[in-house]
Amino acid sequence: MRLIHPLIILRILSTILLIETISFLVCFPVAIIYKESLIPFLGSSVVTGFLFLLLRFLTRKVNTNEISNRDSFLTVTIAWILFSLFGSLPYIISDTIPSFINAFFESASGFTTTGASILKDVEILPYSILFWRSFTHWIGGLGIIVLVILILPTLRITGYQLFSLESSLKEKIHPKTKGVAFRIMLIYISLTIMEILLLVPGDMNLFDSVCHSFGSIATGGFSTKNISLMFYSPYSQYIVMIFMFLAGVSQLVYYYLVKLNFKKVIHNEELWFYLTTVICAGAIAVSILLINTTKPLELAFREGYFQVISIITCTGFASADFLFWPAAGTVLLFMLMFSGGSTGSTSGGIKMARHLIVFKNLKSVFIRLIHPKTVPVIKLNGKIIDERINISIISFIMLYIFMFLIGTVILTANGSDPVTSASSVATCMAGIGPGLGTVGPMSNYSDIPEISKVVLSLIMIIGRLEIVTVFVLFGKSFWRL
Amino acid sequence: MRLIHPLIILRILSTILLIETISFLVCFPVAIIYKESLIPFLGSSVVTGFLFLLLRFLTRKVNTNEISNRDSFLTVTIAWILFSLFGSLPYIISDTIPSFINAFFESASGFTTTGASILKDVEILPYSILFWRSFTHWIGGLGIIVLVILILPTLRITGYQLFSLESSLKEKIHPKTKGVAFRIMLIYISLTIMEILLLVPGDMNLFDSVCHSFGSIATGGFSTKNISLMFYSPYSQYIVMIFMFLAGVSQLVYYYLVKLNFKKVIHNEELWFYLTTVICAGAIAVSILLINTTKPLELAFREGYFQVISIITCTGFASADFLFWPAAGTVLLFMLMFSGGSTGSTSGGIKMARHLIVFKNLKSVFIRLIHPKTVPVIKLNGKIIDERINISIISFIMLYIFMFLIGTVILTANGSDPVTSASSVATCMAGIGPGLGTVGPMSNYSDIPEISKVVLSLIMIIGRLEIVTVFVLFGKSFWRL
Repeated sequence: MRLIHPLIILRILSTILLIETISFLVCFPVAIIYKESLIPFLGSSVVTGFLFLLLRFLTRKVNTNEISNRDSFLTVTIAWILFSLFGSLPYIISDTIPSFINAFFESASGFTTTGASILKDVEILPYSILFWRSFTHWIGGLGIIVLVILILPTLRITGYQLFSLESSLKEKIHPKTKGVAFRIMLIYISLTIMEILLLVPGDMNLFDSVCHSFGSIATGGFSTKNISLMFYSPYSQYIVMIFMFLAGVSQLVYYYLVKLNFKKVIHNEELWFYLTTVICAGAIAVSILLINTTKPLELAFREGYFQVISIITCTGFASADFLFWPAAGTVLLFMLMFSGGSTGSTSGGIKMARHLIVFKNLKSVFIRLIHPKTVPVIKLNGKIIDERINISIISFIMLYIFMFLIGTVILTANGSDPVTSASSVATCMAGIGPGLGTVGPMSNYSDIPEISKVVLSLIMIIGRLEIVTVFVLFGKSFWRL
Repeated sequence: MRLIHPLIILRILSTILLIETISFLVCFPVAIIYKESLIPFLGSSVVTGFLFLLLRFLTRKVNTNEISNRDSFLTVTIAWILFSLFGSLPYIISDTIPSFINAFFESASGFTTTGASILKDVEILPYSILFWRSFTHWIGGLGIIVLVILILPTLRITGYQLFSLESSLKEKIHPKTKGVAFRIMLIYISLTIMEILLLVPGDMNLFDSVCHSFGSIATGGFSTKNISLMFYSPYSQYIVMIFMFLAGVSQLVYYYLVKLNFKKVIHNEELWFYLTTVICAGAIAVSILLINTTKPLELAFREGYFQVISIITCTGFASADFLFWPAAGTVLLFMLMFSGGSTGSTSGGIKMARHLIVFKNLKSVFIRLIHPKTVPVIKLNGKIIDERINISIISFIMLYIFMFLIGTVILTANGSDPVTSASSVATCMAGIGPGLGTVGPMSNYSDIPEISKVVLSLIMIIGRLEIVTVFVLFGKSFWRL
């Protein structure tokens, strides 16, 4: 039995190309409204459209039901690389980002909902390109939700079966995966529209409202302004802050809310853990600002919570230049880069449920030290976690830290200073965007070496795909039958 | 049944005081030879001697066989605090370190075999005080070996039963614990004497040879020179380098070597992992020096390997100021601060066996991703590791990282810059000594705030006692019956 089916993979990738072609077409109206050139999107959509037709024709007799685990891993990884590769076409054709490496970085940063940019000045870009840039976030975010809620659980990857619709495998309440996907897409779209409607009455125009809503709901972080949310009024900042927070909540929580299943929501431990973390970390940040600076209470509150929420949810918008915060605040933000929002949201990083499980493990170790005969049981949402899943969740964190260290060494070896290296790896791996050092929130990635840009682009994709999805491809046992 | 027996604890602590009294007496000949005041050691030994007699009298009818797990945890923690408290007496009485906080820091740094110093100029100290300073390393090192090889395994703490004499609990090959302790002490003393004999023919005088041998065999790091091993010839540096490496090997390896049980040695996976890590990390450091500096090969080799071995084994001697290394080298050394030598050695940190088990867990996760039906089995030295032990080992690392983060935030909040804060916490927790920033290898801890010194002293003790030993005391379940 062959375990890799190239034709099945190509068949699914053709769908990816179709989605990308449609995405290019969405930019047409924007270019027309602002009387800008259609060529970047026309050219790009011709390339992807042609490839789509070619692949679809070649695989016309393929039955995708025979897909294996290996196929899925390969497809997911290639899909994000393809998205990023072709997504760089509009930048290159429009000559806004002539260098391929830079365009690929910007595109990967978009589709992985990172928000790290190599552009020194985004305000001179055509509207249609700015729109495309923010739209890549939105598509990437939608893709990741489908991936983590529908695809990863069936692959039994690093405990993702825990955070999925628990019923989807056994109880078969929703036999039609497409139905679930459709509902989640509706929630995602509704949240986006709600944010746009709330932003427009403020000081943001419709265009900026749409772009920033894409950026916050997808926890992306590309802004249409060089100084990000600092450009806007406190009202706009509060709205974006609230929606970044909402985007860090699992889509499953909204799914249950819509189905009026409040019990599931109230008993969701990760939700409470996420809420507690945000409140506590924000309170620490605000205290640091109040004690060490002369900022008034409201400003300290807004600035502290905005930055903390932006980093915990891995969005990357900034309402202040936190490089000028007191050192303790910067250190706090750096640590929060390893936090991440809820699983099943668009946020990246280690994520709340995994941290929660680590805490539960630590507690269990202490209890056993004193009561050696206790049988250790780790529960999440009232359900016992299998030992194997437990181990794989903790191992994920180890792998995450390991990757962070390797990445930091590579970047430092390429000549970046240690603070820039460590923070840019941390921020790209979690899909945040701004780091410390020369890649702070009011700065960009234009000046880092080319090789480091490639490394960071790959780190963004690897991080976005929960690391293992990609690394498993390099394992000997993957290619062995 | 009472689970805490204060009298048993006091009885054991009286023995600690006896050991400390004898240690003070050992310094008498040194003071006499160099015609220095005997008062610091006379005064200190009178205090501890009196307390010893008092405690011994109060607990004369106590049967220590009734000791419980809780007693052991409490005793071990109090023992290291007592050692450090009374060990500061000679510094205070001799007026070499008048401030109590500073003297406690120096003493704790000695007994925990850390080697971080608050002294700006050690070369002006009396010989007897320098000897005491290095001797605290040697006593602390011996204490820790007894702790990890004989005491912790019986407490079943964070997987230590794995690394102990596997037979000691079940097969009863060595029914007499005292016999094992005696043999290990002999090995420890022999290694020390060997190093002294090899150092004296070089450019180190007998006194300095003794002090540096204490520092290397105990993986301590206090030097009698302000610029540490940089003061001495390449010959002395190589000898110290070799003995630091040897001190990072588990004492059990030597135990088996002495018993001519080579099979046990060859099949010791941790030993090979330790050797591989040292060779690879050293090679990276040497390459960084060769590529980015103009140092000749021999110097780069010696400088690279010396610093890498010093930090992996948590010694802290320096043969160069690594703050002036290329950034990639400094980052590498910072990461190595989390390495640690072998379990069952005097080195601190996370240690090789735990890292090895993490790697094995990661491997197992990947294998299961592709072959979901595989039953995951983690083995060390050919023996299957129980799931519970596995979890507790990984949890230890999580707790370690968690403590590191908390410590860094506290130090930054106290006003130290982030690099100094993070590196001093990392280096003190692992028992290394020099850090980065203002606490580099050619610098000292004199200028950091008083509160931070207290925090770091506690971190040294907590880290030395494998964290859980101390933290368990704060658990609710510890004080509940």
